[in-house]
Amino acid sequence: MTYAAGRHFLQIPGPTNVPDPVLRATAAPTIDHRGPEFQALGHELLRDIRPVFGTTNPVVIYPATGTGAWEAALVNTLSPGDAVLTYETGHFATLWQEMARGLGLDVDVLPGDWRHGVDPAAIGERLAADRGHRIRAVCVVHNETSTGVTSRIAEIRAAMDAAGHPALLLVDAISSLGAIDVRHDEWGVDVTVAGSQKGLMLPPGMSFNAISDKALEASRTAGLPRTYWDWGPMLAANDRGFFPYTPNTHLLYGLREVLRLLDEEGLQNVFARHARHAEATRAAVRGWGLEVLCLDEREHSGALTAVLVPANVDADKVRALILDRFDMSLGAGLGRLAGTVFRIGHLGAFNDLTLAGTLAGVQMGLRLSGVPVDPGGLDAALERLQAA
Amino acid sequence: MTYAAGRHFLQIPGPTNVPDPVLRATAAPTIDHRGPEFQALGHELLRDIRPVFGTTNPVVIYPATGTGAWEAALVNTLSPGDAVLTYETGHFATLWQEMARGLGLDVDVLPGDWRHGVDPAAIGERLAADRGHRIRAVCVVHNETSTGVTSRIAEIRAAMDAAGHPALLLVDAISSLGAIDVRHDEWGVDVTVAGSQKGLMLPPGMSFNAISDKALEASRTAGLPRTYWDWGPMLAANDRGFFPYTPNTHLLYGLREVLRLLDEEGLQNVFARHARHAEATRAAVRGWGLEVLCLDEREHSGALTAVLVPANVDADKVRALILDRFDMSLGAGLGRLAGTVFRIGHLGAFNDLTLAGTLAGVQMGLRLSGVPVDPGGLDAALERLQAA
Amino acid sequence: MTYAAGRHFLQIPGPTNVPDPVLRATAAPTIDHRGPEFQALGHELLRDIRPVFGTTNPVVIYPATGTGAWEAALVNTLSPGDAVLTYETGHFATLWQEMARGLGLDVDVLPGDWRHGVDPAAIGERLAADRGHRIRAVCVVHNETSTGVTSRIAEIRAAMDAAGHPALLLVDAISSLGAIDVRHDEWGVDVTVAGSQKGLMLPPGMSFNAISDKALEASRTAGLPRTYWDWGPMLAANDRGFFPYTPNTHLLYGLREVLRLLDEEGLQNVFARHARHAEATRAAVRGWGLEVLCLDEREHSGALTAVLVPANVDADKVRALILDRFDMSLGAGLGRLAGTVFRIGHLGAFNDLTLAGTLAGVQMGLRLSGVPVDPGGLDAALERLQAA
Amino acid sequence: MTYAAGRHFLQIPGPTNVPDPVLRATAAPTIDHRGPEFQALGHELLRDIRPVFGTTNPVVIYPATGTGAWEAALVNTLSPGDAVLTYETGHFATLWQEMARGLGLDVDVLPGDWRHGVDPAAIGERLAADRGHRIRAVCVVHNETSTGVTSRIAEIRAAMDAAGHPALLLVDAISSLGAIDVRHDEWGVDVTVAGSQKGLMLPPGMSFNAISDKALEASRTAGLPRTYWDWGPMLAANDRGFFPYTPNTHLLYGLREVLRLLDEEGLQNVFARHARHAEATRAAVRGWGLEVLCLDEREHSGALTAVLVPANVDADKVRALILDRFDMSLGAGLGRLAGTVFRIGHLGAFNDLTLAGTLAGVQMGLRLSGVPVDPGGLDAALERLQAA
Repeated sequence: MTYAAGRHFLQIPGPTNVPDPVLRATAAPTIDHRGPEFQALGHELLRDIRPVFGTTNPVVIYPATGTGAWEAALVNTLSPGDAVLTYETGHFATLWQEMARGLGLDVDVLPGDWRHGVDPAAIGERLAADRGHRIRAVCVVHNETSTGVTSRIAEIRAAMDAAGHPALLLVDAISSLGAIDVRHDEWGVDVTVAGSQKGLMLPPGMSFNAISDKALEASRTAGLPRTYWDWGPMLAANDRGFFPYTPNTHLLYGLREVLRLLDEEGLQNVFARHARHAEATRAAVRGWGLEVLCLDEREHSGALTAVLVPANVDADKVRALILDRFDMSLGAGLGRLAGTVFRIGHLGAFNDLTLAGTLAGVQMGLRLSGVPVDPGGLDAALERLQAA
Repeated sequence: MTYAAGRHFLQIPGPTNVPDPVLRATAAPTIDHRGPEFQALGHELLRDIRPVFGTTNPVVIYPATGTGAWEAALVNTLSPGDAVLTYETGHFATLWQEMARGLGLDVDVLPGDWRHGVDPAAIGERLAADRGHRIRAVCVVHNETSTGVTSRIAEIRAAMDAAGHPALLLVDAISSLGAIDVRHDEWGVDVTVAGSQKGLMLPPGMSFNAISDKALEASRTAGLPRTYWDWGPMLAANDRGFFPYTPNTHLLYGLREVLRLLDEEGLQNVFARHARHAEATRAAVRGWGLEVLCLDEREHSGALTAVLVPANVDADKVRALILDRFDMSLGAGLGRLAGTVFRIGHLGAFNDLTLAGTLAGVQMGLRLSGVPVDPGGLDAALERLQAA
Repeated sequence: MTYAAGRHFLQIPGPTNVPDPVLRATAAPTIDHRGPEFQALGHELLRDIRPVFGTTNPVVIYPATGTGAWEAALVNTLSPGDAVLTYETGHFATLWQEMARGLGLDVDVLPGDWRHGVDPAAIGERLAADRGHRIRAVCVVHNETSTGVTSRIAEIRAAMDAAGHPALLLVDAISSLGAIDVRHDEWGVDVTVAGSQKGLMLPPGMSFNAISDKALEASRTAGLPRTYWDWGPMLAANDRGFFPYTPNTHLLYGLREVLRLLDEEGLQNVFARHARHAEATRAAVRGWGLEVLCLDEREHSGALTAVLVPANVDADKVRALILDRFDMSLGAGLGRLAGTVFRIGHLGAFNDLTLAGTLAGVQMGLRLSGVPVDPGGLDAALERLQAA
Repeated sequence: MTYAAGRHFLQIPGPTNVPDPVLRATAAPTIDHRGPEFQALGHELLRDIRPVFGTTNPVVIYPATGTGAWEAALVNTLSPGDAVLTYETGHFATLWQEMARGLGLDVDVLPGDWRHGVDPAAIGERLAADRGHRIRAVCVVHNETSTGVTSRIAEIRAAMDAAGHPALLLVDAISSLGAIDVRHDEWGVDVTVAGSQKGLMLPPGMSFNAISDKALEASRTAGLPRTYWDWGPMLAANDRGFFPYTPNTHLLYGLREVLRLLDEEGLQNVFARHARHAEATRAAVRGWGLEVLCLDEREHSGALTAVLVPANVDADKVRALILDRFDMSLGAGLGRLAGTVFRIGHLGAFNDLTLAGTLAGVQMGLRLSGVPVDPGGLDAALERLQAA
């Protein structure tokens, strides 16, 4: 890799910075995935990952990225032609819709403006109107990584319950798990989809499905073809601490270390840290005289902040300048937001001074790009960080 | 991990021992998978992986294990109800058949005795009989990891050609690539399926499809639903050095190092080393008075050797004793071979003295298990290793 | 180690942050220090380290820290009772004097105020007065790590030459090498003393003596007892790429990587980067309304900045608060500066955004400590960093 | 480093193979050596290292190799012109004598044949004859790394006591500590000298002095100049968990991991393992029809075995062939043993199968070198390893 003095600032909203002890853990020698040492590891991880999802139910671990876990959630619970209801919160919600269509599902999309989360009332209305229960699943993104908007899953569940509709609730928590509170059981989620490379601070390549009893029941009759993603053999093997095919052993080493780190900091402290950094980031953005993409105070993401640039500015050019001058990677605007926003990731292994460095870099980059930002932006962020 | 003095002998036929510099390479910090540094890495790897497959065509890299790459080969080239012809060389051939059935394909199985490779003549006959070209693909395992038998792919292709049959040839090279010569182009293979964790000496979690023009053409009309595995967006993104969803960046770092190591040793030298170690292993087995599972001299695997234990011996107990006393993992007999064979992996990052230690451990373990093996077995192996 | 989210900010003026690839390089397996692979490494490093010191003469590498290399410089060139002339630039100059006394040397100290570097004129006067050439060596610290003041070695040499005095010039470049230009040959230094853990960005445990012909000549008659530090057997073994006793192989692996990194960035660029970060730091200090310890514009250190706190403030309490709240380590005031200054290290593997984070942490820590600093301090630093 | 497939066999008698978790531990980021996290580490290590030396007294840790710790033992306890009694057990005893002379001590050498350990009776006689107590210290090597002979320290102490002589007993345990039982307190040793890179399985660069009360008392009046090695400031700083100059932090991380590993295996089990491997090695040597250098059954080393080659064979050529053909490093004959012996290191992180591989490599190498060794040698070793 090209050398630049010091550490690169990887402030995309995932993959995130992997803590040093986790990187070292992943570099341990390979062990036999069918031997007793692995078995003990498997039992430990399959048990200890559950609280991170807020569940006492099984969590399936795939050697695949989050996109694969999306597919797994769909193919294990649905049959060809099944209707699913989705909500267009942003780019990733759209990609998940496209995947569902690609798998032969009938996808209903509730439109969104990419600046708000899922409207629970709209979900409730649509389900209430679905008297025949044609809709088999509601698929929503918890934290929309393309917009920095976090949907209120508990309210969506409440709306579904109020509508008395039996659809499954499938939730993409890829960029929230480990950064923003996820409560699979309490919220009545049927499948929570997550990945290793965001709040879990691991390299990419591992992903998850947390599974409710109802989802498991649905999987017994779901008709979409599935082999790699099939929960059945996975859960059977997991019962003995093993996997039906070769697991990615080294990421499991890393996961053990991550679970230790999360436990040491305390999950609630982890979430509070993310919320605090998000607040400081918004203080900076507003101090600069710029606009945060997310419009609803209840929906600001703890994981990332999407920032609108002025109309005459190309956000990608700002990002390129910042990468070139300050060795920092920021997230691009995706889909319809291309060029008009950039995204600051502040999730994972992250602390106050790294945030300060990040915001300083953004501030300098904006000014060098000709955006007349007020240096009080960074000061405002520091004020927030200074507060107890 | 539990400590035992010294290094564990991981002599299963994969996942294999990852070379130290490769482990260290995988522990580098994460980079932005959409940035210019990654792009350069992507271009480099997508180009340099090709010669390892013996192809100038594209090789697709999945963040998934080999089982996923099996699925990818099928769903990209076939449609629901398509007939595929397979040959029962062993456990993994059987699993691939089951996967094909699970995906809704119509699977014809040519029976085998698990001690021979694919019979090219049998393939030729069956195809010749298939006048209507109902069979759309022939799926065979190059090196059957459960038996230590390597099928002769070039002869299979010749038989297919002689039959004038248009079926695709899909080949599982999971435990051969990087250990036994694989010639995707020369042999006329349409999809070569491989994984990271065998001859490529990487941690598990990455897998491959090398794709012929004909396979690519087939993918345009293939009707099995596919999203994660879809070659289309993958190849489109690969053209720019990128991937359509998050790649497993850290294994790509490792792959770069592996390609460097393979280039340094020279691929033909790598294959010769494996063949030589396989010969030495067979010399030991025969010296012990035991039987190698593979019955055809043309089909001995360079990657592993499966050894039959005497009828009154439980091979799994022998393995357990060897693990307990000598901290060495060997491969179990799988499927119908459970308890009657054990498998010695001698592939990947491996040298003469590690083989000597391995064979010494097997010899001691057999004797401690009450199998009256001749100590001349190890001597015979050393004789082979001593020879130039 | 205790976990705190994100990376610790290690902003003491050494040991410094070791770049990730260097850490990984040091974790390679041990090799035989008497074998051909080591020999090639030895030849390479003993050659390539020379330009970093600005010398074509031999550089001796010790498995010891900088303190050991101080001792080596003295015992190889001097005899019991020899007079040496030193200058009290700060804490480390004082420690070196104490060491010289401990070794039985007769130490003349030119007093200093710990806010200026060595006064070349004072050296010249004292040497001119030493008609009998009782003084055998002048020992000065190039970059005084306790004060952030860099002495002008070339001017010292000029003063010595002007005085026509034959004393050796021994220079402690421990915290300058790799951060501030060091020109052993051009400046006529006789022994340059350095360590691994500052500008060379390595873990501590390795140190250096660059040796002039004149120093080497002196070592032939120098009478202080020496064995571990003896240049004679060291240089003899080095000629063959080896060391007279076990070298610290793993730090040598790291050194190879460091030399590659320095070469990639370019030594002059490395020095310019350090100077620029030092300027930005001073801009912050002055913007805060505080005082930089160093009083002479010609002598500001590129490696660290010592900052005076107001009279009623305990600098150590500020540091403790910053460590506790912002997970950043700063350097303490040493010796007579205890409690009245803190030191910001900005050397080694370091970049603009890490500096911004560092200065943000100092600013917040000062304010939380009740020091009424102006937030314009950080802004002023960013202005400097923004400039081309 | 040049790549050869598989892992290099580093079977020199030190530096030894560093366990993977220890290598990874040494690659953690640097911390502030004056901060609270370091302090906790310092207190922990300075306490937990003591039992490994069999002492409840302080153990000083140097950032230096074993040669430095030799010098430290001498300069802290002796004055210029003091007489020391040594015994010529081999190359390292001789080097230590030369060092003592180089420091201006008056060295009495009891001659040895390099095939036996120290003769306690000879020590006793010489001391008894020293009525005036001119001799201030007896310096002996516990495990002579050049010969594979382990001296009986308890008997030496008994002889000293019987002679009623007040000399200090200084013992080089560099290649025994962590491999062969060392009992500083029980044996009445005054200074035990050790290093990191042998039985402690660490990279080279750290060394030790365990210090008796009597040695500490002697240090108060000892007149040899000392600064780097001075116990006084070291013990004072150690009391607070710190070091008087920069410690080698990363090796201290490794030491923590080593102490954990030793504790997990149990020190007595560690010693038994080494003894068992030494027995198996001797069985091989004798089975080959060759001679072990050590002649006294009570003195065989658990750490290494020196093997005499036939008169017409150059041991260094055998080693070179083994390195070239089998990628294994063996120890050379040193000093007067050059060319006539080679040394097999079997200490540190080591297990049965690595020993089997090692001995197989030696056997093949001897045969390829034209030494007509009986292949029964390896068989005999395996017989020993098979035994419970």
